[in-house]
Amino acid sequence: MKTRDRILAAALELFNQQYERKVTTNHIAAYLEMSPGNLYYHFKNKQEIIYELFLQYEERVDTNLAVPTGRKLTIEDKFNYLQNVFQGLWEFRFIHRDMEHLLSGEDRLHARYRDLFRRCQKNTEAIYQGLSDANIITIEQRDVEGLALNAWIVVTSWFSFLHCSLQADPNENITLDMLKGGIYQVFQLERPYLSDEYRERVETMQEAFIPKPDWL
Amino acid sequence: MKTRDRILAAALELFNQQYERKVTTNHIAAYLEMSPGNLYYHFKNKQEIIYELFLQYEERVDTNLAVPTGRKLTIEDKFNYLQNVFQGLWEFRFIHRDMEHLLSGEDRLHARYRDLFRRCQKNTEAIYQGLSDANIITIEQRDVEGLALNAWIVVTSWFSFLHCSLQADPNENITLDMLKGGIYQVFQLERPYLSDEYRERVETMQEAFIPKPDWL
Repeated sequence: MKTRDRILAAALELFNQQYERKVTTNHIAAYLEMSPGNLYYHFKNKQEIIYELFLQYEERVDTNLAVPTGRKLTIEDKFNYLQNVFQGLWEFRFIHRDMEHLLSGEDRLHARYRDLFRRCQKNTEAIYQGLSDANIITIEQRDVEGLALNAWIVVTSWFSFLHCSLQADPNENITLDMLKGGIYQVFQLERPYLSDEYRERVETMQEAFIPKPDWL
Repeated sequence: MKTRDRILAAALELFNQQYERKVTTNHIAAYLEMSPGNLYYHFKNKQEIIYELFLQYEERVDTNLAVPTGRKLTIEDKFNYLQNVFQGLWEFRFIHRDMEHLLSGEDRLHARYRDLFRRCQKNTEAIYQGLSDANIITIEQRDVEGLALNAWIVVTSWFSFLHCSLQADPNENITLDMLKGGIYQVFQLERPYLSDEYRERVETMQEAFIPKPDWL
């Protein structure tokens, strides 16, 4: 792996494990047994590292939300969208966990994040439209935007919700069950719109994500 | 107003206006034209002020979500719940805007916040059950919990969503239209469950909260 990529991978790991704001470039260099000077040769400061990781995340999200052309959406697509979106969230969880802090004073990053939101909103609307065209959901046009926006909020707030509202010990690791809960909640948003034809099959899918009973 | 209450009111105002983490006890004292010593006489540090404000917020939220006894819920109740919840959010907006930071390392506050979440979850479930008993919504038991949880996430993430995903200028003031959008989104969550009898009347209520067309 190139040094530049090693720095990015180590930074991502440390940001995810700890609060990004507690990790300095010196921590990253020490973790890689590298001199700070070597790190600065590749990135002039921590903000540059964060920006580069954000670009990786952005690319991932855009890929995850692409709508296939030339064929109708299937319930497997719906399942895959959710799995992939949450997998991406997990791998870059430092981004949404402490968002206000990450963006505060970072105009360039903030502008990109707003653009990503607008793109995701449009892509999610296209997905719901595609699911409607495939008769998997039955939804009026005016509800598509509101549903897509609520999905964005639930997805992007999920890690912050886990940390703030659920976790007794902030150093405790996020478990797979907790991640599953987020997928369950997005299914929940969409469930009232399921068409009779697909309701049972999609509800069976959702059941695999029921959070543990002692969750709330 | 007692000095103690003046300090709390000034702190709330400054925390809301700016990021809480940028406001020090010295700023609060200077804003009140008070010596830092006088402030420290009432609160030993900023954390104590935050904790006290959180207790005020908590009381407010508990009052807002109380379910009346001895009568059925009405659509006016539904409307008032939403209005009051968002009014409370607005008045204490520093709390949810930068939540991860606010709770980080603050075990006592974090424990109270988790308790508040659990109480709100139960109260919101009771409200949805009440709306169901009054035939305003038709909802299966198994959907009540998921709906209540999504409502919690949308409400508590609303200011953070505005700041991170929408606002071009972080110093720009949140407008009433933006606040209305949050109420619209909670109506949106509930809309698929509206009973035929009440659908039209509740949808008319929701229309008053349609965000500006150029919103997204």
